[in-house]
This record gives sequence, C-alpha cells and structure tokens, in this order.
Amino acid sequence: MRPVVALLSDFGTQDYYVGAMKGAVLAAAPDAQLVDIAHELPPHDVRAGALALEGAYTAFPAGAVFLAVVDPGVGSARRAMALEAGGYRFVGPDNGLFSLILARHPDSVAHEITNAGLFRHEVSSTFHGRDVFAPVAGRLAQGMPVTEVGPRFADPVVFALAEAQAVGDSVWEAPVLHVDGFGNLVTAFTARDVASILAGSGGDPNGIVVVVESVVMPFVRAYADVAAGQPCALLGSGGRLEVAVHRGAAGRVLGAAPGTPVRVRRL
Amino acid sequence: MRPVVALLSDFGTQDYYVGAMKGAVLAAAPDAQLVDIAHELPPHDVRAGALALEGAYTAFPAGAVFLAVVDPGVGSARRAMALEAGGYRFVGPDNGLFSLILARHPDSVAHEITNAGLFRHEVSSTFHGRDVFAPVAGRLAQGMPVTEVGPRFADPVVFALAEAQAVGDSVWEAPVLHVDGFGNLVTAFTARDVASILAGSGGDPNGIVVVVESVVMPFVRAYADVAAGQPCALLGSGGRLEVAVHRGAAGRVLGAAPGTPVRVRRL
Amino acid sequence: MRPVVALLSDFGTQDYYVGAMKGAVLAAAPDAQLVDIAHELPPHDVRAGALALEGAYTAFPAGAVFLAVVDPGVGSARRAMALEAGGYRFVGPDNGLFSLILARHPDSVAHEITNAGLFRHEVSSTFHGRDVFAPVAGRLAQGMPVTEVGPRFADPVVFALAEAQAVGDSVWEAPVLHVDGFGNLVTAFTARDVASILAGSGGDPNGIVVVVESVVMPFVRAYADVAAGQPCALLGSGGRLEVAVHRGAAGRVLGAAPGTPVRVRRL
Repeated sequence: MRPVVALLSDFGTQDYYVGAMKGAVLAAAPDAQLVDIAHELPPHDVRAGALALEGAYTAFPAGAVFLAVVDPGVGSARRAMALEAGGYRFVGPDNGLFSLILARHPDSVAHEITNAGLFRHEVSSTFHGRDVFAPVAGRLAQGMPVTEVGPRFADPVVFALAEAQAVGDSVWEAPVLHVDGFGNLVTAFTARDVASILAGSGGDPNGIVVVVESVVMPFVRAYADVAAGQPCALLGSGGRLEVAVHRGAAGRVLGAAPGTPVRVRRL
Repeated sequence: MRPVVALLSDFGTQDYYVGAMKGAVLAAAPDAQLVDIAHELPPHDVRAGALALEGAYTAFPAGAVFLAVVDPGVGSARRAMALEAGGYRFVGPDNGLFSLILARHPDSVAHEITNAGLFRHEVSSTFHGRDVFAPVAGRLAQGMPVTEVGPRFADPVVFALAEAQAVGDSVWEAPVLHVDGFGNLVTAFTARDVASILAGSGGDPNGIVVVVESVVMPFVRAYADVAAGQPCALLGSGGRLEVAVHRGAAGRVLGAAPGTPVRVRRL
Repeated sequence: MRPVVALLSDFGTQDYYVGAMKGAVLAAAPDAQLVDIAHELPPHDVRAGALALEGAYTAFPAGAVFLAVVDPGVGSARRAMALEAGGYRFVGPDNGLFSLILARHPDSVAHEITNAGLFRHEVSSTFHGRDVFAPVAGRLAQGMPVTEVGPRFADPVVFALAEAQAVGDSVWEAPVLHVDGFGNLVTAFTARDVASILAGSGGDPNGIVVVVESVVMPFVRAYADVAAGQPCALLGSGGRLEVAVHRGAAGRVLGAAPGTPVRVRRL
C-alpha cells in the first residue's frame, strides 16, 4: 500500500510553490500518494486551515500523513512540529493549525522538528514548506517513527474556537465560522451541541428552528427537504451545524459572513 | 497497472471537499491513480459537467473510472448510478450528467447504486460524493464488477442538447454551449455536422464561413492559420466546432456567451 | 520507483484540458506520478512559465519529466522539443519556455519532436498538449531515451531576461519580474548578483538597503526579521531577490507590478 501524504496550505495555485513542496515530498518518498486538500485558504488564516483539516482528515485511510503549512513564521521562534493523533500524522507549524485535531484526540503526541539531518540539503529562510516540512512528511510516510524528528513537547499552541452558548430560555447562539464555496454557512454548533439541544425536545427535529439575521428556518436532514431557494439548517458533513439555501448561496441570500450569530431555538 | 480514478465536480477548490472525496476513494482503493478533470464547474451545472466529461474521457486509458458529482440531489428521489460505457466506468448521480456518454455509447449498461455494504461506515445526508460515490468508484477501480452496486436499470436521465438546424438555404445554426478559460466558444455543431456541411462543398474548407454576431470568419485548421487578433472557427479538440480569436478571447471580443447563435454558411 | 511527470500550463482549472492531458500521459505511462506545478499562468505568458519552471524544478527528484505547455503555436512553424538538462527532462514548445533552464545548464541537449509514431492515434490541430507532448512525456518517463523523439538541434529559442545593471555609484537596478500570490515581488536580481554586491560591503547584510518606489527597506534573512506590516527584501526560495511586506502584500502596499524598478544601494 502506497503511503498517503495529504497537503493543505495557503500557497494558492497560480505560483509554483505547491508543486515544489510536492517535489520535495517525492524526493523523500518517491512512492507517496499525494492528495491536495486545499491550497486557496485566505493567506495566513490559521483558523480556516484548522477547520479544513477537521473536515477532511477522517475521510483518509489510517496512517495518512497531513502536511499543512499556513503562516509558518519562518525566522521567528515558532516551532515546527509533527503530531500523532487518531492514527494519523500531522506535520506543520506550531501555531494552532492543529487545534481542532488536538481537541478531538487528547492522547495526541507532539514532537518538535529539530533533526536537521532530515531537511533538504539547503534550507531557505523563506520556504520551510519545501525545505523542512515536506522532507519530514515524506520520511514519516515512508515509515520513520515520529520520535526521530526531535524531542516530544507538551504544550502545542491551541486557539479557542467560539462555542455555542445559552442566551435565553431555550435559545442557544454560536457564530458562523466559515462560508464555503457553495455559500453554505458552517457554524460553531457541533453535532454534539445539536444532539444535546434535540434531546430536550425528545429528539424531534421539528422541535427546533434555526434563526439567522431574523430569518427562521427548519432543521432538516438534507437540502432537498426544502424547496429550491428556501433556507434550512442541517448537520453538515464536517460534523457541524450548517445553514444552507437549497440550490442557492446562503451567505449571499442571508447576508451572513464569518462571525454572524446563528441561533437555535427550541419550540 | 494502477487503477485510474478521474474526478469531476462543482465542489470548487477553496474547501476541503475534493480532498475528502479523494481520501474516501483511497480508503477503498489505496493504490488508485487519482486525476482531477475539473472542480470549478458552475455550481449545480449538470450540462457543463456533461460537456467536460465528453471532452476528457477518451484521453484516459481503458478501464478508467470517472467519479463525477454535480447536483447529486441528496435526500431527493434521485438515483445514484454506475455506468459501463466505451470500456470505461462512470459513477455519479442519475441527473443527466452522463447524457453525452450515453449518446455516444448506445450499448451502455446502467446500474442503480443501492448496495449499502459498499458505502462509508457513516453516510451523511449532505455529502454522498465522499460517503457513497467515492467508495463505489474505489471498489470498481479495484476490479469489483458493476453488477455488485445494485440492479440494472434501463432509463437513465438524459437531457437533450441543442442541435444544429438548417435555417435557410445553405445556412445552419447552433448555439454556443460553453466559453472556455481562453475565451474559446464551444458550439453545438459536432464534427459530424461540420463534415456533412463540408461534403456539400466538395470537402473544401474554403467553401464555408462561420458567422457570430455579424462577424464573418474563415473555417481553418489551427489558430495560427489567422493573424493574432483575428477570429476563426475550427474543429476543437473535444469534437465540436469552436470559435476562437488567435491569442485573444473570442467570448469577450465577439460579445458571445452560452446561447449565442453561431451560423455556418456554405458559399 | 515511479516515474515523475510534473505539469505546467496556462490551461486554467475550470476546463477539462489539464485532466485530458494527464489522461494522455497515463495512457503512455500508467504508473507515472503526476504532479501539478501550476496551470493558472496568464494565458500565453511564456515568461511566467519560464519563471515557474525555474523556481520549481530543483525540488523534484532526479529523472523527473517536466511537461510544460504554454503558447505552443499549433499549426505554426514552431518546433516541439524535448530537452535533457541537469538530470531532468523537459517537454514542450520551442518558444523560450525553457530559457532559464538552458541558461543554468549550458550542456543541455535539445531534440525536436518529430517521431509521429509516439503521438496519440489521432492528432488534433488545436491540442498538442494532449496529443503530442503528453504521450512523449509519458514515454520519456517510462525510460525511452530522448534521442527517440527526433533529431538533435542546436538553437532552441531563448529570450533575454532583464538583468541587474549598475546605475550609479554603489547603486544597482533591476525590474520586478513577477508578483506572486502573496503579493511578494520577485526581482531580476539573482542570488549571485546579491552575493557580489554584498561582497563589496564585506558581506554585511546591514551594508545594503533596497529601494522600491522611494520606500527604503532593509535586506534581511526572513520575513519575521521585520515587524508585521513592514517592508523588507530577502533572498527568495527561487534564487532571486524578493521584496515582501511581512504579513502583507508588497505589490499592493508599494504599488509595484512586473517592470517596476528595484534598486539595491550599498551604504
């Protein structure tokens, strides 16, 4: 079985940077199966990177290595790290990019990448994606134990993600975290939050509604449960409550953006 | 030889969706050769997807599996299907996405995907690309017979594509179907239409002209047969008459868009 | 070890063209490892293609084949070529696309591609990327000697790239060549130019400053050596002097674009 290396960055696709990073992975792991997650994250947006990783990683076969480079802070005191979590390995800067992975896997093991013997022959001071992270990801994919990259450390950087809050009698609120390419709103309500709210209405999906910018919409199972052009809320494929407009763009229709408050109301 | 899985969708590239779908293919077919056809189709545009498939599929080695997901209508009555046609396999929603493949291969065999044993362990109600279509495509790539996915059916959805029409004495008309990234106009005239019109002028390419928005242009063999900035018509690589401006963007120069009528006139 | 084929083009990603070209590589080399360098180059921009190749190629393992198609001039007298240089192979049009590779490897060997037995069964007059260049790249990746493609020739097309010039006492000038997706300015100053200027100040990086549109900035080692929002100059990962704004977009902040003059001043 070929080792999988999945790549995530904010490098964009109009330059050669992603290609060079992949070349460097292949120089270390000629047989690797390379898969792009996304490279058009907003520049330096570590939270967007953390959300994309959270959404994607469980779809990959066990053992996959995730090479994620967003805002590595080359030349600063920022650590480079490799993480073992949930049967996967993650390689990238220690800047919070792995916050949501760490939150889901409290038994994660983080190592600082310090073993310069693993790096590209010549390490630039601007492109550690190619010169440091890619060769390390390639070696891990080839079977190198994570202990080889450098010493274990206990305090990887973690950012706090907005969480759902009770804001009244049977009303909860959480912000939009991300508007996807279809215009769907990914919210901070987790599947667990929704399950807990639903439990209070006997598990009946009709027992709750979702409100965004004064628009009240039903909580449904699939987009097709409402007519084209109608808004709805549902559990998205990434494990969070999403707000959508069937065959439309909820972000535009509802005037919503990251930060817009979303409310769940128990009837 | 590694099995090829070629992917087409309207998922865009700024989100993790294509990456997650690929991860799910690899979970079923670790050795698959993954190839992107395009993921930036206009959202829900089944016709654009059908045209892209038509243009691309014959370039692939026999046996390739095409995983195509545009407007799957999750939660609706829309069927999921697998198709054997022309020595290839196609997996996706039964919504007309395979219309042009079916038209070229009348002996195609379609099966409804109903065998839940093939699906991802947990099937979401929003992302069948990852949870249903990808695992099935992976299994087919690994050699599973298409009969395993579910029962054969006889009436896959097919949309009617605009066709060339005679509109006067020695004049034929058909609309622009697609404007590509270079600004070239892909028309509904097929290579067969053009051959048939040319036959009436003794096969002489100088015996016909093409007219778009009152601009008359020659029918040539290659872009370089006209000067830079000049319009021309030619047989495009996808098997349809195309209108181009040499080193320019015909769509912008001629003010043309999908639906704009194009005429071929025999002199 | 699987043969690597790295792809570069101006085809964009909204059409099926890159996918079809990859399919044609796989038809010749089923086991190839396909890697995208970039496909969103400005249409017909051969210089942008040459710069992207220059930046990317050394990251790849020896033996990699680069399939680069920008402005092939199908139907014109333009030659198709295959090049051996620096332990790599390059396939594409003879239009200057390999100028910077040729400049770095004076012992390169160029062959015109004339052996029609290697081409796709049916060669279109618009898409030699799929029908000529891809099958040849695939065969080379499979181990075919470059001598098989056609006769050697001695005069591949080379364009002259702007070079740094002394413009006064201890002042050198060269233009911006490219603004990358982060807004960084890639200049025509090479690492060698900078080393030579630095030698005159005893190798002290503080002995020089860089000036763009009247803004004076330090020459540093890494972006993080200046505060967020501050401009700096440094040696970029592609081997050229770059101008950046830490966590900002230098192109926008400084009002610079390709052609904008950049000066290095020895203090």
